[in-house]
Amino acid sequence: MTQEIGFTKMHGIGNDYIYVDSTLYNIKNPEKAAIAWSDRHKGIGSDGLVLIGKADIPEADFTMRIFNADGSEAMMCGNASRCIGKYLFEKGLTKKTSIRLLTAAGIKVLNLTVEGKVVKNVTVDMGEPVLDNERQFANTDANGKETTLKISEKNIFGTFVSMGNPHFVIFTDDLTTDSIEHYGPQLEHDSMFPERANIEFAKIQEDGSIRMRVWERGSGITMACGTGACATAVAACLTKRTGRTATISMDGGELQICWNKEDNHVYMTGGAEFVFEGYIHF
Amino acid sequence: MTQEIGFTKMHGIGNDYIYVDSTLYNIKNPEKAAIAWSDRHKGIGSDGLVLIGKADIPEADFTMRIFNADGSEAMMCGNASRCIGKYLFEKGLTKKTSIRLLTAAGIKVLNLTVEGKVVKNVTVDMGEPVLDNERQFANTDANGKETTLKISEKNIFGTFVSMGNPHFVIFTDDLTTDSIEHYGPQLEHDSMFPERANIEFAKIQEDGSIRMRVWERGSGITMACGTGACATAVAACLTKRTGRTATISMDGGELQICWNKEDNHVYMTGGAEFVFEGYIHF
Repeated sequence: MTQEIGFTKMHGIGNDYIYVDSTLYNIKNPEKAAIAWSDRHKGIGSDGLVLIGKADIPEADFTMRIFNADGSEAMMCGNASRCIGKYLFEKGLTKKTSIRLLTAAGIKVLNLTVEGKVVKNVTVDMGEPVLDNERQFANTDANGKETTLKISEKNIFGTFVSMGNPHFVIFTDDLTTDSIEHYGPQLEHDSMFPERANIEFAKIQEDGSIRMRVWERGSGITMACGTGACATAVAACLTKRTGRTATISMDGGELQICWNKEDNHVYMTGGAEFVFEGYIHF
Repeated sequence: MTQEIGFTKMHGIGNDYIYVDSTLYNIKNPEKAAIAWSDRHKGIGSDGLVLIGKADIPEADFTMRIFNADGSEAMMCGNASRCIGKYLFEKGLTKKTSIRLLTAAGIKVLNLTVEGKVVKNVTVDMGEPVLDNERQFANTDANGKETTLKISEKNIFGTFVSMGNPHFVIFTDDLTTDSIEHYGPQLEHDSMFPERANIEFAKIQEDGSIRMRVWERGSGITMACGTGACATAVAACLTKRTGRTATISMDGGELQICWNKEDNHVYMTGGAEFVFEGYIHF
């Protein structure tokens, strides 16, 4: 017997998930649902499935479980958590503008910027960057913050930043698809990164914002990457290209990143969008 | 002011469209809706938008208008018309199992195979193939039905068949993505095809069915192509590789093709699937 399940499709800078209120619908096999529903031709089409629930501990308000399109469970996703903030507030499930969300990566606090009944922006605390100094300074260049890797007979300068997942941020004038597809996979698999790495190609623009394109570990070029935007802002600050705040402009949209001096945490601010409401048998 | 529009997502062998009953919802700018909604990350995600209406001429029962993801209006789509057959019958809009559908390419008759309340298969009359003999026999090979093109220093044998749109069908043992990506674009743009061509790579299998992969004009490798399946069956019959009926197995699924001896029409039979129901503001 199939069950009719209501869902909401949302995206944050093009990173799109299917959101289900698990207090209304009990999905017994979310891994299987994520795989079937994420198919972009024969399913709903998405980057994955997000289940929203009520937290049963006093330290948190709501819970988030996130399943990738391949059925694996993810720890956390900044773009998805911004969407949850908008979902909870605009659907009237909470009146709070500061929401404590229990994720597989711990409790994350969402801060909502609200105009009337509309959530304009959500800020997510993405935690502290980890700067692996030993790796970082294996081949330190003149400015002391960039590492040199030799790829295709060319010296590539970049900064290694972990935001829970590993990133290598390169500042370059060349953000063409050809270059990213040439250097991205070689850098991803460089022996310097035993767990492989996400590779960010970034350029400071005239207005001071940073244009960034990303080669994601295991996925190739994607429209946007929340942790990649954080890593890029941290690398830009470390190498004195920007101050502690930066606007990161990606193919899918923009994020504002602030690397807070007081608590060393990286705060990511950006939009979230409702796309449509749907019903599917499962 | 936005309007809430109900839609149904369906697919035929992976060719997925958004279906709207235009007697319930009046979409003033379907080109714009098709572009916005087809976006696979920020929209509903589809190959395009199909508007279903009531015909106001006695020769037809219903109407179909089909808009591609780029907003252009298409003449006709076999996979979409099968979905319309299932939609009309299962949603109770008709009790007929033979439906006359008015399209931009004329009236197309859909014949439904029904079990209880479920449409199992739909057969669509795809019209007569056009065999361009002048072009066909420019460089005729020994069997008299295949043309030779020299691509990358290699002789490629194939059959030119128009099903309203141009196809060049090649029988080969090599259906690898690498080969299709190598030969597909060169053949598509060969001077023999002033309007370019869709290129089919086909192989007769042990059970007599035909495994086929397609390089679509302007799109590259796609999961399936209805007119391509028809052209492949016609080419297989012309070159005496099969009789007048064939099962064509593509990445997205299977179609049964019958090239009818009496009327010279090609009949395509295959499934159609409901995926989900949705509501979107537009």
